[in-house]
Amino acid sequence: MLDRVRIVLVNTTHPGNIGATARAMKNMGLSDLCLVEPKLFPHEEAQARASGADDILTTARVVGSIEEALADCQLVVGTSARERHIPWPLVNPRELGAISAQMLQSGAGAKGRVAVLFGREASGLTNEELHLCHKHVHIPTNPDFSSLNVAAAVQVISYEMRMALVEGQAAGAPQWGTQWDIELADNAELERMFEHLERTLIDIEFLDPDNPRQLMPRLRRLILRAVPDKVEVNVLRGILKKVGLYGKR
Amino acid sequence: MLDRVRIVLVNTTHPGNIGATARAMKNMGLSDLCLVEPKLFPHEEAQARASGADDILTTARVVGSIEEALADCQLVVGTSARERHIPWPLVNPRELGAISAQMLQSGAGAKGRVAVLFGREASGLTNEELHLCHKHVHIPTNPDFSSLNVAAAVQVISYEMRMALVEGQAAGAPQWGTQWDIELADNAELERMFEHLERTLIDIEFLDPDNPRQLMPRLRRLILRAVPDKVEVNVLRGILKKVGLYGKR
Repeated sequence: MLDRVRIVLVNTTHPGNIGATARAMKNMGLSDLCLVEPKLFPHEEAQARASGADDILTTARVVGSIEEALADCQLVVGTSARERHIPWPLVNPRELGAISAQMLQSGAGAKGRVAVLFGREASGLTNEELHLCHKHVHIPTNPDFSSLNVAAAVQVISYEMRMALVEGQAAGAPQWGTQWDIELADNAELERMFEHLERTLIDIEFLDPDNPRQLMPRLRRLILRAVPDKVEVNVLRGILKKVGLYGKR
Repeated sequence: MLDRVRIVLVNTTHPGNIGATARAMKNMGLSDLCLVEPKLFPHEEAQARASGADDILTTARVVGSIEEALADCQLVVGTSARERHIPWPLVNPRELGAISAQMLQSGAGAKGRVAVLFGREASGLTNEELHLCHKHVHIPTNPDFSSLNVAAAVQVISYEMRMALVEGQAAGAPQWGTQWDIELADNAELERMFEHLERTLIDIEFLDPDNPRQLMPRLRRLILRAVPDKVEVNVLRGILKKVGLYGKR
């Protein structure tokens, strides 16, 4: 679906930025680059900064007007650094990803294309250019240092496109990755391990059974927070067994 | 709160990437840059690519080891491009933002610091370096072109840190609660504890120093996943001390 997301660079001055844009796009799986009247292109500096994303540069389309770049697109979004005279529907990059996914996955947009416009290094997009857009996207930045490099802006937008269109909208932080290869321990195994731990702590005189205080709850909380797998529980029990033997040598 | 997020670049080869990193950080409001044995720094190419983020370069700390870079950090996350031999808790940049927000906004991390490690341009972080980390973060990329420029990776991570910490776009279930009353352990405390653990496991003959296999990485992974607080680390060290005495009775 990322092949239906177009990055449009308007009047880019430095060819190095075109190369870095191509690399950022390809890293995230985008491929459709359109250049509106670039100052210098093709150029060796673009090749160098593309670092292997030459195919994106080769297939990039160079056009003479923004209208030409956008003609076959259903959703057009312009990047905007500052607040505009006339407020426009303004989204952040994450919302742009969500909107794009809605559009491209809907019946209405089943053959559709999204275009994201990036302006000149020094001055961005003009008001007239921004008025061609359905929405504006603003990348949140430090108010005291807000001027993003154009390829860095493409990187952030492309990342959010990938997150929305390829990765799905994952929310929340999993504690293991999806690649985790071992089954998690069940409650019975955990409880046997905690009993073993408690006996051992009494044996080594760390835990006073007449005054246990909060020691076991603290250790339970620590270990349970990690939600151990079966191998980890076996390793812990192996250690406890060896501790027992250690005192009997 | 972004001033408590540290970007750590390990053995960076190209000074231009250090400059571009400084710019990406400042754009997103981050300021704490730490360089572990950079090949060339300071360097005019770093200045040039910083494009006005010179203050980040001026205040950047150059250190001789990763341990030095991490000593005062409570949550350490390493960037990882490929799947590892032992799976480690793996998050995406958005989840990293959420976890960082939870930590830095909780009682446990009220004075805490998050460090994000970025490896060498050609080869990333080593397994040993990744085993220093509580979690790993993977930036989703095109499988056919996955090698992100290091400053582009910093851009994405810094963007998500800003989204979570400034824009209030964090989500997910907290690992500690906001009510957590004890400060999290810092890296130096954790490493001392792991050294103590390793010595003890050798003493009790659970760990064979001539054939350590993956035992320490497995135990590191388990304990780091829980992100222990200072009291928990003290309890663990108290247990290890008692185990030592147990064998000498």
